[in-house]
Amino acid sequence: MFNSFGNILKLTTFGESHGVAIGGIIDGFPAGVKVNLEAIQNELDRRRPGQSKIVTQRKEPDQVEFLSGIFEGVTTGASIGFVIKNTNQKSKDYNHNTNVYRPSHADYTYDKKYGTRDHRGGGRTSARETANWVVAGALAKQLISHISINAFTSSVGTIYTETPYSELDFSKTETNDVRCPDEKVAEKMIERIKEIRKEGNTIGGTITCVAQNIPVGLGEPIFHKLHAELGKAMLSINAVKGFEFGSGFAGAEMKGSEHNDIFNADGSTKTNLSGGVQGGISNGMDVYFRVAFKPVATIMQNQPTINSEGDVTEIQGKGRHDPCVVPRAVPIVEALTALVLADFYLLNKTRTI
Amino acid sequence: MFNSFGNILKLTTFGESHGVAIGGIIDGFPAGVKVNLEAIQNELDRRRPGQSKIVTQRKEPDQVEFLSGIFEGVTTGASIGFVIKNTNQKSKDYNHNTNVYRPSHADYTYDKKYGTRDHRGGGRTSARETANWVVAGALAKQLISHISINAFTSSVGTIYTETPYSELDFSKTETNDVRCPDEKVAEKMIERIKEIRKEGNTIGGTITCVAQNIPVGLGEPIFHKLHAELGKAMLSINAVKGFEFGSGFAGAEMKGSEHNDIFNADGSTKTNLSGGVQGGISNGMDVYFRVAFKPVATIMQNQPTINSEGDVTEIQGKGRHDPCVVPRAVPIVEALTALVLADFYLLNKTRTI
Amino acid sequence: MFNSFGNILKLTTFGESHGVAIGGIIDGFPAGVKVNLEAIQNELDRRRPGQSKIVTQRKEPDQVEFLSGIFEGVTTGASIGFVIKNTNQKSKDYNHNTNVYRPSHADYTYDKKYGTRDHRGGGRTSARETANWVVAGALAKQLISHISINAFTSSVGTIYTETPYSELDFSKTETNDVRCPDEKVAEKMIERIKEIRKEGNTIGGTITCVAQNIPVGLGEPIFHKLHAELGKAMLSINAVKGFEFGSGFAGAEMKGSEHNDIFNADGSTKTNLSGGVQGGISNGMDVYFRVAFKPVATIMQNQPTINSEGDVTEIQGKGRHDPCVVPRAVPIVEALTALVLADFYLLNKTRTI
Amino acid sequence: MFNSFGNILKLTTFGESHGVAIGGIIDGFPAGVKVNLEAIQNELDRRRPGQSKIVTQRKEPDQVEFLSGIFEGVTTGASIGFVIKNTNQKSKDYNHNTNVYRPSHADYTYDKKYGTRDHRGGGRTSARETANWVVAGALAKQLISHISINAFTSSVGTIYTETPYSELDFSKTETNDVRCPDEKVAEKMIERIKEIRKEGNTIGGTITCVAQNIPVGLGEPIFHKLHAELGKAMLSINAVKGFEFGSGFAGAEMKGSEHNDIFNADGSTKTNLSGGVQGGISNGMDVYFRVAFKPVATIMQNQPTINSEGDVTEIQGKGRHDPCVVPRAVPIVEALTALVLADFYLLNKTRTI
Repeated sequence: MFNSFGNILKLTTFGESHGVAIGGIIDGFPAGVKVNLEAIQNELDRRRPGQSKIVTQRKEPDQVEFLSGIFEGVTTGASIGFVIKNTNQKSKDYNHNTNVYRPSHADYTYDKKYGTRDHRGGGRTSARETANWVVAGALAKQLISHISINAFTSSVGTIYTETPYSELDFSKTETNDVRCPDEKVAEKMIERIKEIRKEGNTIGGTITCVAQNIPVGLGEPIFHKLHAELGKAMLSINAVKGFEFGSGFAGAEMKGSEHNDIFNADGSTKTNLSGGVQGGISNGMDVYFRVAFKPVATIMQNQPTINSEGDVTEIQGKGRHDPCVVPRAVPIVEALTALVLADFYLLNKTRTI
Repeated sequence: MFNSFGNILKLTTFGESHGVAIGGIIDGFPAGVKVNLEAIQNELDRRRPGQSKIVTQRKEPDQVEFLSGIFEGVTTGASIGFVIKNTNQKSKDYNHNTNVYRPSHADYTYDKKYGTRDHRGGGRTSARETANWVVAGALAKQLISHISINAFTSSVGTIYTETPYSELDFSKTETNDVRCPDEKVAEKMIERIKEIRKEGNTIGGTITCVAQNIPVGLGEPIFHKLHAELGKAMLSINAVKGFEFGSGFAGAEMKGSEHNDIFNADGSTKTNLSGGVQGGISNGMDVYFRVAFKPVATIMQNQPTINSEGDVTEIQGKGRHDPCVVPRAVPIVEALTALVLADFYLLNKTRTI
Repeated sequence: MFNSFGNILKLTTFGESHGVAIGGIIDGFPAGVKVNLEAIQNELDRRRPGQSKIVTQRKEPDQVEFLSGIFEGVTTGASIGFVIKNTNQKSKDYNHNTNVYRPSHADYTYDKKYGTRDHRGGGRTSARETANWVVAGALAKQLISHISINAFTSSVGTIYTETPYSELDFSKTETNDVRCPDEKVAEKMIERIKEIRKEGNTIGGTITCVAQNIPVGLGEPIFHKLHAELGKAMLSINAVKGFEFGSGFAGAEMKGSEHNDIFNADGSTKTNLSGGVQGGISNGMDVYFRVAFKPVATIMQNQPTINSEGDVTEIQGKGRHDPCVVPRAVPIVEALTALVLADFYLLNKTRTI
Repeated sequence: MFNSFGNILKLTTFGESHGVAIGGIIDGFPAGVKVNLEAIQNELDRRRPGQSKIVTQRKEPDQVEFLSGIFEGVTTGASIGFVIKNTNQKSKDYNHNTNVYRPSHADYTYDKKYGTRDHRGGGRTSARETANWVVAGALAKQLISHISINAFTSSVGTIYTETPYSELDFSKTETNDVRCPDEKVAEKMIERIKEIRKEGNTIGGTITCVAQNIPVGLGEPIFHKLHAELGKAMLSINAVKGFEFGSGFAGAEMKGSEHNDIFNADGSTKTNLSGGVQGGISNGMDVYFRVAFKPVATIMQNQPTINSEGDVTEIQGKGRHDPCVVPRAVPIVEALTALVLADFYLLNKTRTI
């Protein structure tokens, strides 16, 4: 249960950043889906380190290899095993930190919980794990190809795009390094990230995600609400501190008469403050939500800290890290969204006779 | 899986607002816990309708009856069944809405998903379900009695308490009807709710929750992160639109050098922007988070809408509803927090030899 | 997880034999099934104590009350809660056994595992729990009404019916008290049980179950094989010591050339030693299996034993118990079979696109 | 859920016999266990093809490679990924069977269920999968090293060992090719298998397994009874047709006065017809059970059959197969027993405060 996500469509993962490989098993994927392997690798490449000047300069090919469950290009209904080999582990970068607890990392909590940890590059705590999620999500997208899922960087630090998503052209998301389809704002964001990197610092940001053409009826209404599973998924991503959907926190300031979404005759609604979900179930309108990422904890500045003996010491900023995690997190947000939707899509087949 | 919450400590529920009874089964509760039934009923009374002038005036005693799993006042390790009878169902209040879809309610999505629904008082979609959660949460609190959990109303509409939680006296939460321990702000909130009710309107708000004295090590680091499960729990509550913990959305504007929590020699941290969680695992600092509630969808004003035949019609505001759901949601937030923490507390026993 | 059975269609139960009530929650039952309540009660009546002279003479009406999930006679897709009140608990019968461990009962293991137990009538260990299973199974039968499920008593002690099931008329199962459709053998079985009861003793037996008209494709091939789930279900019934399907233990003496089921052109097989399952998946042939029940441990004879203090003592045979549990177990076997098949039927909807 | 086994300690697997590799993820394995890799490989070698003259002569090294979760020889609490590469796939052996349904194999049911299948060597249906189980079981054994688990061949065809297990010397199990510690009987069994192989035929058999030094309290009493989980595990092994524990089917012929296990003063019992389990919970006595294996379906004789077009055809006996699967299944039975016991061992930590 610890390393699994989903109910019918279930992803289970393994892997440390500096082990032999990471990977996973996708269980419950239906038979008969023609798999586009290139599209999966393409999603991985969007997440990959070293892809642009504003992300970490580590070079990792992140090549996924499928080991089972796909035969002659089509899923067989068997579990789908895959691995991504770790090829560029510079464990030496981390040797100076063997027993030092990096501030706002998970070194301390892992040590206390498990009594041991693989300290190399964060081990199991590394965001490298999210490459597994991208593989599974890219496959899930092919199962629910009628649904379109678009995430983008909606803020970096205090620089926000103010354009409503409905006025953005999602095809422009991939045209700039920060993955913001609002091109003028994208430039400012990139500038900001470059400044931050020069400071040896990092910065937070937000991602907005929009899922469209969702059939009515996805989501289970009590403890597996569509938005609750999306929220859990997003809060599983490293560095995420908040999730809101539809009107979100702004909705908490509103009156009922302002917030209610009035129906059109066809069941669609004139407004969509609900964010496409009523009572935990999709209503056919766009599902949209926003995810807050804190700044990456690893900074290129020296910081006071302690080690596992409880001695006060200093940690030096070394290694190759992202000044802002948000651009690389865009495909991760999409991948998890696809996993959640595909899971509910399958589950929904069992809810009526 | 649909109506269950938790892993080791698992709550499964049933019940419609106007059926015979609601109830649930608490599975995995360990043997040997002395049960304080009065404390459980007390929590239910905090959630109950009709408890003050600013909540719905429906009168329901909400008396929990335990049917199993407790023998001579002590849990036996067997599953704990309980029911809460529905005694004050005025189904007639809802007869005029049999086939009308109430705006921003789940009538439409239930009908489309299931092809049928119990329309009386929202049926299974009613927030009456949360009484079940309060029972289970109150029991969970007794399992992890060393942890203190305090939720309170932190905003109503645009009225916020600006006092940091560490300066608030939680013993004052129950001294006013809105459940805000910042007494001056509480008065303004109450005033605001009264105005809103006079308008026949409703208003949103936020709840802040703080869990203290949490042992280091709760939470599973990949897909069952402590904060992700808390987020999922909160997003399961009717009307919730957002969840943030620690620095939350504000953290997304910060730099790494500002956001990092520097260690003290004892492993505690000088700041706590992390919200007591590192890598999904509790670090012993306070876990705190904030939950956004939209305004209740049922307003005492007429609204245009459609019915199940797709005819445009008008819905009239009738029935007895809350002008602001937030005060009654405080014990619900605490209950779910207790369930999540107790589940992880049990799970953690299995993580080392 | 402890008190739940099933994956998509999940039954969770509670209740002690001498508590207020037993009951359960059926989750994942699809919407739109018209419920025949009388048929459910009828199944309960088949399991009920006091129904004939060869079963326990306790009188319990075992009236099921549904609390949710069924509206205007049709399932709504919401969880289905139900209770069966305990009306005829003679706890006094058990007072003399408060701290005495009955041989081959679960008193000792419960005490050691949980440090406490509800000693009245076996508490949670009582076979009264199986009434919950019968309710859920009877409902499941209505979901998969195209499949016919027939169990019957195939042996009592050393008295066996030698007639192949295909030559038996299942409509005769209910015409005699022992539930064996082979009428001549049934008479001998009844005679045997009466003798055993006079001795103050008990006796074991076996039940054979046949499920027919099963669609090809039910069962998941690795860890949720159709026959493995059936086996687990049967081994969950109190007093069961063995399970075999198809050729069973006799098959272990055979050669491959004898055991292989040769195909007909339509995909059916000329023989069915496989018991309707190939690789864990139903092949459309009859699924049949046999279940072994040990003799009931409670006998009307005095036995030496120990108490919770470790003192050697004697237990006296008192109370109202079954001389042979097999006749009353027939509807239980059918109920669990229905639950397993209905679960796989729903699951199977998700296995192809 | 389809390819997973266990609750707390959960194994999820993947792999086809003629794909790139098979493998799995072991989740929930506690931190701090020193791993003996050689012991794991040794168990795999016991299951490996080609190990003796009476098993299949395929040569596969079956080398397990661990990819995560073990750091510096100790488990970290992270999920443990592993792979076993397929090195000796002679897919050509199977090309003649591409669309032919082998009698009493799963070709037909897979095709009907999934609409497609990997026909090479049985694909996912191959018993090669059990190598994954042996890896996980060997690791589980190291977690519960205080419990000893010994399985052995108790019959081949109609040749049985009649010696009670308590009089057998388990250290002799590995001294002969058939894995029967009763040496004289072992010789006869080996002779019988050699004859059968010469005939181009196969033969069934049974395995008995004994687990000793089990603590009191393992097992959950309603739907996760210790013996029910063991039964499910055994019935998951390819070719298994039956499971009995303790007195088993013989117990169904007995009287209560004969069957009851009378207590000694220390809580142990004078007899152990219960098979070490009371009410689903271990009582500290030996847990023992017996598993029936049908003869392998692949025989070296021509058989009539049909193909996927429904044409009647003939299948020719080719390939390298086991004349009797039982000797190689001995380590598989032990492995699954270890997984079940280890899972309950961990779960039991959560059942009391």
